[in-house]
Formats: sequence, C-alpha cells, structure tokens
Amino acid sequence: MSSIFGKLFTISTFGESHGGGVGVIVDGCPPRVEISAEEIQSELNRRKPGQSKITTPRQESDLCEIVSGVFQGKTLGTPIAILVRNKDARSQDYDEMAVKYRPSHADATYDAKYGIRNWQGGGRSSARETIGRVAGGAIAKKILHQIAGVEIIAYVKTIKDISASVDQETVTLEQVESNIVRCPDSVAAEKMIELIDQIRREKDSLGGVVECVVRNVPKGLGEPVFDKLEADLAKAIMSLPATKGFEIGSGFEGTLLTGSQHNDEFYLDEAGNTRTMTNRSGGIQGGISNGENIVIRAAFKPTATIGKEQKTVTKEGEETVLAAKGRHDPCVLPRAVPMVEAMVALVLCDHLLRHHAQCGLDI
Amino acid sequence: MSSIFGKLFTISTFGESHGGGVGVIVDGCPPRVEISAEEIQSELNRRKPGQSKITTPRQESDLCEIVSGVFQGKTLGTPIAILVRNKDARSQDYDEMAVKYRPSHADATYDAKYGIRNWQGGGRSSARETIGRVAGGAIAKKILHQIAGVEIIAYVKTIKDISASVDQETVTLEQVESNIVRCPDSVAAEKMIELIDQIRREKDSLGGVVECVVRNVPKGLGEPVFDKLEADLAKAIMSLPATKGFEIGSGFEGTLLTGSQHNDEFYLDEAGNTRTMTNRSGGIQGGISNGENIVIRAAFKPTATIGKEQKTVTKEGEETVLAAKGRHDPCVLPRAVPMVEAMVALVLCDHLLRHHAQCGLDI
Amino acid sequence: MSSIFGKLFTISTFGESHGGGVGVIVDGCPPRVEISAEEIQSELNRRKPGQSKITTPRQESDLCEIVSGVFQGKTLGTPIAILVRNKDARSQDYDEMAVKYRPSHADATYDAKYGIRNWQGGGRSSARETIGRVAGGAIAKKILHQIAGVEIIAYVKTIKDISASVDQETVTLEQVESNIVRCPDSVAAEKMIELIDQIRREKDSLGGVVECVVRNVPKGLGEPVFDKLEADLAKAIMSLPATKGFEIGSGFEGTLLTGSQHNDEFYLDEAGNTRTMTNRSGGIQGGISNGENIVIRAAFKPTATIGKEQKTVTKEGEETVLAAKGRHDPCVLPRAVPMVEAMVALVLCDHLLRHHAQCGLDI
Amino acid sequence: MSSIFGKLFTISTFGESHGGGVGVIVDGCPPRVEISAEEIQSELNRRKPGQSKITTPRQESDLCEIVSGVFQGKTLGTPIAILVRNKDARSQDYDEMAVKYRPSHADATYDAKYGIRNWQGGGRSSARETIGRVAGGAIAKKILHQIAGVEIIAYVKTIKDISASVDQETVTLEQVESNIVRCPDSVAAEKMIELIDQIRREKDSLGGVVECVVRNVPKGLGEPVFDKLEADLAKAIMSLPATKGFEIGSGFEGTLLTGSQHNDEFYLDEAGNTRTMTNRSGGIQGGISNGENIVIRAAFKPTATIGKEQKTVTKEGEETVLAAKGRHDPCVLPRAVPMVEAMVALVLCDHLLRHHAQCGLDI
Repeated sequence: MSSIFGKLFTISTFGESHGGGVGVIVDGCPPRVEISAEEIQSELNRRKPGQSKITTPRQESDLCEIVSGVFQGKTLGTPIAILVRNKDARSQDYDEMAVKYRPSHADATYDAKYGIRNWQGGGRSSARETIGRVAGGAIAKKILHQIAGVEIIAYVKTIKDISASVDQETVTLEQVESNIVRCPDSVAAEKMIELIDQIRREKDSLGGVVECVVRNVPKGLGEPVFDKLEADLAKAIMSLPATKGFEIGSGFEGTLLTGSQHNDEFYLDEAGNTRTMTNRSGGIQGGISNGENIVIRAAFKPTATIGKEQKTVTKEGEETVLAAKGRHDPCVLPRAVPMVEAMVALVLCDHLLRHHAQCGLDI
Repeated sequence: MSSIFGKLFTISTFGESHGGGVGVIVDGCPPRVEISAEEIQSELNRRKPGQSKITTPRQESDLCEIVSGVFQGKTLGTPIAILVRNKDARSQDYDEMAVKYRPSHADATYDAKYGIRNWQGGGRSSARETIGRVAGGAIAKKILHQIAGVEIIAYVKTIKDISASVDQETVTLEQVESNIVRCPDSVAAEKMIELIDQIRREKDSLGGVVECVVRNVPKGLGEPVFDKLEADLAKAIMSLPATKGFEIGSGFEGTLLTGSQHNDEFYLDEAGNTRTMTNRSGGIQGGISNGENIVIRAAFKPTATIGKEQKTVTKEGEETVLAAKGRHDPCVLPRAVPMVEAMVALVLCDHLLRHHAQCGLDI
Repeated sequence: MSSIFGKLFTISTFGESHGGGVGVIVDGCPPRVEISAEEIQSELNRRKPGQSKITTPRQESDLCEIVSGVFQGKTLGTPIAILVRNKDARSQDYDEMAVKYRPSHADATYDAKYGIRNWQGGGRSSARETIGRVAGGAIAKKILHQIAGVEIIAYVKTIKDISASVDQETVTLEQVESNIVRCPDSVAAEKMIELIDQIRREKDSLGGVVECVVRNVPKGLGEPVFDKLEADLAKAIMSLPATKGFEIGSGFEGTLLTGSQHNDEFYLDEAGNTRTMTNRSGGIQGGISNGENIVIRAAFKPTATIGKEQKTVTKEGEETVLAAKGRHDPCVLPRAVPMVEAMVALVLCDHLLRHHAQCGLDI
Repeated sequence: MSSIFGKLFTISTFGESHGGGVGVIVDGCPPRVEISAEEIQSELNRRKPGQSKITTPRQESDLCEIVSGVFQGKTLGTPIAILVRNKDARSQDYDEMAVKYRPSHADATYDAKYGIRNWQGGGRSSARETIGRVAGGAIAKKILHQIAGVEIIAYVKTIKDISASVDQETVTLEQVESNIVRCPDSVAAEKMIELIDQIRREKDSLGGVVECVVRNVPKGLGEPVFDKLEADLAKAIMSLPATKGFEIGSGFEGTLLTGSQHNDEFYLDEAGNTRTMTNRSGGIQGGISNGENIVIRAAFKPTATIGKEQKTVTKEGEETVLAAKGRHDPCVLPRAVPMVEAMVALVLCDHLLRHHAQCGLDI
C-alpha cells in the first residue's frame, strides 16, 4: 500500500469505505494561504454520493473537519489533517461479497496480495478513498489560482459513444455544473443523462472520457527526464479508480499525422511571447509546460459493480454467480470530474514548488 | 531535473547527446544476480542509432562499460554504474538550432525553464538519454525472468494507419526482431518499412503505437492507492520521449462497452487458480496484478525534428523558418520498442521488491 | 514542514498542541498483524502528560482511536490512521507567548521560517506531536517482536550529573517502569526524582541522557552508504524535541582508545555463529547490524520553557523579559523514554522490510 | 544498498575501492551555476590518499572528469556526472582479507547481508566511496557561498586526548590547511602529528573529533518535525565511515546545565535583528536555523584496519588471527575534514532549495 502522493506538496490519504472515516494529511503546504473548511467542502460536495439520480443512492454528507494545520483562517505550513466520518454504512449489503469476488473489481487482487480484505463496500479500493484527494486538491487549486491565476476545468467529454463539443478556451465551471452529468454541452448532456438512467434501470453500467483543460499555466513546470509533467499527470490520473487510458494533447489520434502536420509551429504574440499556432502538444513540450493550455483526457471504464448476474468464483475456490447488491454508481464519470481536477491540481502545485526550488533562486 | 526513477530498484541516469557520455547508476539491485556487459550490450544494440535505413544515420557503437557494482560476474548489491561514451558528435549540424527553436521539441521549454541549454543535438532532451534506461532495464529483465519467468515483449502495433495483427499469447522476441521495424506481423511490417522510408525521403516523419505484453506476471504487484501498477506503468511510459498516450487493457475503446460486456468474469482453471475468461483489465485489477498478461499501449507522436521547412522563432525573439539539419529518426517506433520494454521491466522489478517487502514477511 | 518518516514502513504525523487533535497515518504496514487500540494506548500512557509529580500537570487522557487500516483485529495492509483529540487546552496561558519568544524554543524560528505560528502551547513544535510517533512505534515494536523477537528497552541513563548503572543484557521493561523517572537503577532513580522535584520548585529545568538497548536484532539491517543503520537512528533521535547529541556504542569516549583497544575481536560461539567479544561497535559495523545488541544514547537538553525570568525579544522587535506560564515538564527525560523506543522501532521495522526487499528474494 | 542522498539537491554515488572507478551524479542542481573541474578537484585533493606521512601511502591522483551536466562552464540544471578512475590498486594485499574478517570493519556484515563482497580494499565500504560525496559537496558549497555567503569550515578538534583551541568566529580555511593534520591550533597540531606518526609505527590507529562551524547561515532552513536541520545533519555525518557520535551546540555537555543556564537569551542587535547572547543551541532551534553559527561535532573511532595482530574468524567459520596488510590511514581525521564539510554543504544546499520551495512563493 502506498498512499502518499507528491514530492513537496504531499498528500497522505487514509480510510476505508466502511469504518471510522476517510481523510488526508496535506504536508509541505506553503504557509499563510487563506483556506476555510467551506472551500474544501464545496469540492467534496461535487464528489459526494447521492447527489443526483444518476449517482449511487448512498447518503453521505461528507462533512469535513480541519483537524490541524490551519490557524485563524490561514495555513501554518504544518501538516493539514482533514477528516470525514463515514455515516451511511449498510455493511449487510456486502455479506455476499465477503466470499464472492466481483468481476473486474479489486476484491480478488486484494485478497491475493494482502491475504486479508475489508470486504464492506470495497474497503480501501472503494472510490470513497478519493475524498482525501479531492480535499487536498482543493487546497492545491487555491494556491495555483492565487499564485498564477491557474484555472483547472474538467468535464465529461464522452459517455459511451455520445460525445460533447466543448470550447477549451471558454468553458466555465458554471457550464460544467449546470447539469448532473457535468458535461458543458447541454445537448449532449441530456442524451448522456438519459442513457445513464436507462442503463441504471438495466442494472448495467457505462464508461466514458473526462477531459481536463488547464488555463494560465506558468511556463517551466515539469522535471525531465522522469518527472516530466505529462508523466506525473499520467500517474496521477491512472491512480484514480476505473481509469484505463490517458492522453495529452493529440493523444492516440496524433499518431495518424505526419510530423509536419503534427508539429506546433511557433510565432510571437503581440507581447513578444513565444507561442504556438496549434496545441497538439497539449501545453507540454519535452516534459515542461510551455504556457499553452494543458489538455488531457482520461478513459474511465464502465463501473465494475453491477446488479446483473455474472459468473465468478468464491474466496474458497468455488465457481458461482453474483448479482451485486450494495449501492453503486451506474457511471462514475459525473463524480470523477472533481477527482480529475484534484489530481491535476496536486501535480501542478507540487511542480510549481519544485520548479521554484530548482530554478527560482537568484543565481 | 529529476533523473531518478524507482523506489527500491532505482535508476539514476545522466548525460547529454553531446559531451562526455551517458549512463546510469542502478541502486538497490539484489545481490548475487549474474549479469554481464554482453547482456546489457545486446539490449543497447536494439536501441542504438544507425541500425537500419529507417533509423537515424548517426553512428554510435554505444559500447557500455560496467564501472562498479559487479564482481566476478555477479551483482554485489552495491550501485551498478554503467557508462557509454559519446562518439559521433557532429555538433556543427546544430549551430542553427542554438538560436532557432525546433517546433514541438524541447528547445524552447528548456530555455524557458533553465535559462540555459546544451543545444548540441538536443542535449538532455535527446532520446540518447534513454541509454541509461535500457541498460538498467536489462538488469531488471534478468531478475524478473530469473525469479518468476517473466517475459516482456514489446513490438510496433501501428505506424500511422497501418496496424499489425499480433497474438499476445505466442509472440516471441525472435518474431519482433525479424525485421527492422520490430513488428511481428511480417505483412504489416513490410508496409510500415515502405511508408517510413518514403516519409524519410520527403523529409517528414511518422508516429504510431507500441504495444507491450508481459507474460507470467506474479499476482500481487502494485501498491494502491497511488502506486497502482498501471499508474506507475503510465508514468514510466509517459516519461519516454515523444509519448502522447497510454492505455492498459481495453483502454479508450473500453469506454464504448457496458459493464456487463466489459467485466472479466472469473473461472477456476484446472489447477484451481482464479482466472479471468477475458482480459479487458489488461492484467491489473484495483491497481494490483492478477496473474493474467499485462497488456499496455503507448502512442508515439511523429518525430518533431524534420527536414521540412517550418515556421518558428529564435531565442532572441524573432520569427523565422527552420529546416532541421542533424541526423534524426524519421520514425522513433522501431527504436522505442526496447525503451518500452525497459521501462516496463523497471516498474515490475521495483514492485516485485516492494511487494516482497510488505507482504513477504512471515506474519 | 516535513512530517513523513520512513521509506517503506512510513509514518505521517499531524497536529498542534492546541486544536482538533494530533495523530498519525502508518502506511506500508504488513497485513495480518494483530493489533489493538489497547496495545497502542499502553505506549501512549507512558508518554502522556500528568502521569507524575515530575511531569507537566497538563491533564490529557490521550485516548487513541484507530480510524482505518485495522479490520477484525488485524492490519489490512492499508493506511492505519490513529487520532488523539486535544482536551485540556488552556490557551490563555499562552497569550504572553504570542508576542514574546521563549529563549531556546522554536517560537522565533517558526516565525522566521513560516511568517505565522500557532502560539498556543508551542503549536507544532510542542512535544505533543510525538504522540503520532509513539502510536506508530507501538505497531513497529509489535512487528519486530513477532518476526524476530526484537526487544527495545530505553531508560534514563543520566539526569544532570547523576548516572545510573544498568546491565544492558538483563534490563527489563518492568525495571524501567518501576519508578516515575524511568531509570532501572533504583538508587540513582531516587536521587534523580529528588533533583527534578527540587528544580521544578525552583522554576528551572534539567536535562540528561537516555540510553536504549535493542536485543535480538537480526543481522543485515541497514543500507550503506547513506542509509546506514546508525545514520537513520541518528536522524530519528535527533528529530525528537530537545535532543543535542547522539552516540552509538563507544561514542565520543571511543575516540580516546587506540584501534587495537577499540576493535571488537571476533570469535565463534557454540552454535558456530560469528560473534564479537566486546561491543564497542554498538551492534552495527559498516552501517549494518551484526547481531549484537544495538546500544545508542541520546542527549536531551534541559527544558527550554521555564518559569524563571529570562531576557528575550518580542515578535515586534522589542527587548523584554519573560517568565513562562503554561504547563511544562521540569525534565523531559521520563516521558522521552517511550519516544526514543518508538523512533528506534520505526527505523528498525523500516529496515527489516527494506532488507527483506533487496536481499530476501530467492536469487 | 542506498546510495542516494538529498531530497531536491541529490547525490547518487557509486564505486568500489578497486574496479573501474568511483563517482557521483548530482541531480537537481540549479542551472547557470559557474563550476569547473578545477574547483571540484581542489576539494578532492584535500581528501585524496598519499597526501602526507600521516595518511595512507596509497597513491591516487583522484583526477575528476565532469561527464555531463556542465556546458560552457555553467550547470545546465541536468544531472552532473563526475567520474574518478581507480589507479593504484594492489589487490594482492587483500587476498588474506578475502577470507579473514577484519575486526570492527564491514567485512563480516557485508557478507551477512549480501552473501557476496568485493573484498579488494574494502570494496564499497572503503572510504574511497566518499569521493562522490566530496565532489558533490564542492558544488553545494559553491551555491551556498554564491547565494548567501555561507562559509563551512571543519577542522580536527581532538585526536585521542589532545584537544585544540579554536575561535569559531575567526577560524579560516587557510589556518586549517596550514598543517597536515588539519587542526588550526598549531601547537595542538604538532602534538597530534607526532602522536599519529608514533601510533602508525606501532601498527595501531587513533580516533578523534572533527568540529565544523558554518557562518552566515540564512534563517529558516530545516523542516520539522522529521527533517529538522540537526536531524539531517546527524544522518549526514553518521553516514560517514567510522563515525560513532554527533553533537550540535552544547551536545552531551549541555545535559549538565539547568535550563536557566543553558537557554540562549535573545537580544536585538544594532540592525534590529533577533540574535542570541550565547549559542548553546548551535545555530538551530526547533529544527530550524536561527542565523547564528551552526556548530557540530563528529566522533571518529580509531581506524579499524590495523597492522597489529588481532583475533578473528574466517568466512568459512574458523577462528584465526589477522595482521592487516594493505595501505590504510593510521588516523582518518585529517582526510575526514573535507568529508564533513561536504556532508554539511549537501544538507544545507538541499534545505536551502526546500525552504525556498515551501516558503519562498509570493503568497
């Protein structure tokens, strides 16, 4: 188990789906940053279950408590501990899953690795662990915005084969939050909601793609050759539950172009800044941000836990079938949007500090 | 700059395209592993330039020297330093690039970040830095194979829109190495070679997809929630030059399925082992290897350095055009194959040790 | 701020003296270790304030809650979060210290570094932060004892110029706990208690030396050249509040001997094991444990916070005097004993896992 | 084996006493720092063997090559690889030590840990590994001096019971280098040299204490609670070969004082800066530098390898005697002086960058 993320701006998360609670310690946060429990809560509310008909009906208020690290409304530079208690735990729903492995879920691999597993609601492999990420990400977002005006906006780009049309330059948080599927294209959003609701009734599930655009990124973030900005973003995204793919800029589609078609030619803008005419690089070249918008995409598979009957085996080694009870999302995408934003914010904030450390001294 | 990779089995690489040389220190390697310079050399030879008409004509023998850490043919458990000298350095080819930024290359971002740059041949951003990765990966491969019979085989899956048909269960290194494009589908390989050769003559470049299959992976590798196996693989791959996307198992295509279509149902094999009927998970569930084949894909963009004239700007802030001289690959994919294998091996070997540390004690 | 310690068996601590509470996340713990809140509590009780007339009168029950990571009495391999609430917070005692810096305390340096400080009771620099260390150390101790029968026993060796006579081979926890100063030499203990009580009444404070002996240490722990076992022990000890010095084995006294006097000659014991006739090495040679007892000593300065009037300056830059209110220990040593044991346990447990990772595979 | 040191300014060292060579990669170095091989060489020359009659007669010029990371006289921000070849390797001297363990040396523990050992001249446990530290430290020193005028001066404080009198405010490098024992008190130095020369003829060895003073340290360096500045210094020093103890400021002697005697009272200097009247804290309070001189001491045991006959055992488990051949120092202290300076410089430079990262942003 490795629940620590980041080199300088670090989060250390804890908690199972059922038990005392979940949370995070944010270590290495710059001092004197104004932060309130309300700001963190507003991000947690975007992630919490039971927020609409297309999410899991589990009811959790997910109220956060800042236990340490903030004094008179400002960060101390000391570890910020944030705790969210578990409430609506119906562990009896999971009795069957104590013995039967859910296909494509973490049940079997946790047992294989650890020889023990909290089988109530997924335990540590539950998406509930992302509460700590989102809480830490809220602080990272605040710092990025305050220092450099950075804007991080994620949204649902596709659900199954329904694709949204989104203008990366202008899309706003308000547009994303204007509907329950968190897709800023209202026409596509309506179709997505309808499809998810239908699949939910069929006891099946759906996947899709979340896109994230970051505007006003300072130049120079990222540390080749291993901690290239896109490498750390890829790790951050692929550590989220249910992700199967990551792209930056042109992504897999970019392999269909020739170099002369794909390259982002340079020009000078009116202020004399070096800019690119196109942005197939997705805001990062050679592992370092170039000041253009960072654009990434994450593929989320259809939720593994479904009510439909599937073939599986038991812990004791017998073949059987399972139709999962418990409460689960028919599609994780709407709630994945704030998770993606949080992970992107954590990576960028960490690299902001790292870049400042190596290249910000007066040599 | 962050040139250290891995937590327990660690590589620390160094070197620019032009200068004294490139290389790696492998730290944390288990003791008493038999390893020879020849074994490392054979992997370096797959990566070296000038190996065929579809790679860069730069001539480097890339002969490696083991400077430390190996005694009487076995690893000591101490740091293994490996050095490769630079030879065929024609830095005059790069005079123009000292002032003109190559579009979609790292020239401009390195200058923005560091305020200084070795402009000879790409300096640190040259793919030449991957020599250290491939050398370290050779040792990781050896350990994985010796401990668990792990087989890591990467190959070119697509070049532009030419796609190969490959059987992941049976593909061999010999098939991969049977042609200069490293595609085990000989029919597709021939088309690929032809296309690359044509685009080379047009002073343009091509991209594509490398697929990597890993067989005989022990169950239990990977450390949720942040160091999930696919997360560390994603970072490893996305730290390679020219990568734009990463997929595991079903990848982006998997988002078009419903959960009941996508889930890998379990069964018991003849030996009583828990196995999956399909492998859309790509060998990893919940961040932990499940014993099935690991299958990943990496998108490589078309080479940024091309001979065709492109619009760009100079370091001093003037708009200009550039038709790159210097020697470069029209398509990086054939030489990227051993790089992908090396990065996968490094991640798996590190996690083999990590898993053994946390879960291998006799509790 | 850097509140994470350990490479594989990792603790991440949080909390200020006054505020919501203090605690720890233990990450990387092996699964299936039996652990109860009671076991952790018994260590915390040795550390808690108000336990005798020679410790601070602050009343805190320091009851711990295991929030995550333990299921049905066993560790899950997931992060173990432990929370202790703050109770007896009389922050009004500290109003004066909001502006006046306590000499030789962390007040001035925290302000200089962070530009902000929780001045209530020392904030993060309070010894209250060691609760997280002791809680984590309790788990480390359990593992070390279970795997290898390791015994870690610390005790007060000197208070000022009063020195105890202790037999490292036979000293027991019961002897240490038999008096309130935690010195197993009952004659010396009585003198120590008397002296501390007297200095308390004089509103002054005392320092001394804690010695720690570790028996049944497995051979092979420690990772040269930087993570030598004594180097990591030194860091662990010197990270405790009020420490000014660290010794292993012969320590500073050893510099008065010649090599032929100092060297530990080897012999074979009855079982054929390589042993040393003397133990000036303190159980570690070349950075690696040799199976003999590990013996270290830590110097703790006299408590900085005293009731006597001292010259100081204010945050606003005016010279003044301060006679500290608030509740504080006249001598930290009795309560430092479990802290030293905890830090030693954390280092050894981490290295147990690390050694198993690099050298425990079947090569 | 763990041969990586530092969090942001990182060194990764390699090399055995006999074999291809030794060296270091410095990663995370700020760009545009002027550095030459000559500057590094001058520090290596202070460390090299054969420099006087009181050091080992092994002849090594220890000439360094900068392989990467420096371009046109300035650091690139990329990894700086520095290589020193081994020359005067008389491995036949060590045939006996291939089977007989030197008492209090690392021979037996390396065999116990790794099951293999390069027995030529100590292999990795030879003090020859410190070449990489000293080379890296030379760069750290340069940065510290350039950014903040930091001066790091170590010297021999005692040899056996001969103690030097040194003024920490005024001692200079020239004074230290004015004699072969590196003790700035010329009267004591003469006695020390005489004693070492005598003990050398007796085929025995001596130990002593190196003191290091650091002037012009910026306030604010150090990261509580685990990476306190004194904790990282302690680890750095205790990772050096032959160290048995570490002190900061008042050290073990400080435990004989009461709090009112020990505390460093504050005053305002003419410029209005908060200063301390005394410096028993050794320049660090609460884990953070306070701007006063940092003063530390390191105890070095007498050299373990001696020509006198001692009882020992063989690798095969037989009792025997050993009178060591090979060339070794009768006293490591003179050559340890630049090693101590290097380790102190590495810690301070790392923390300079770390402090700048967390607290140097414009919040």
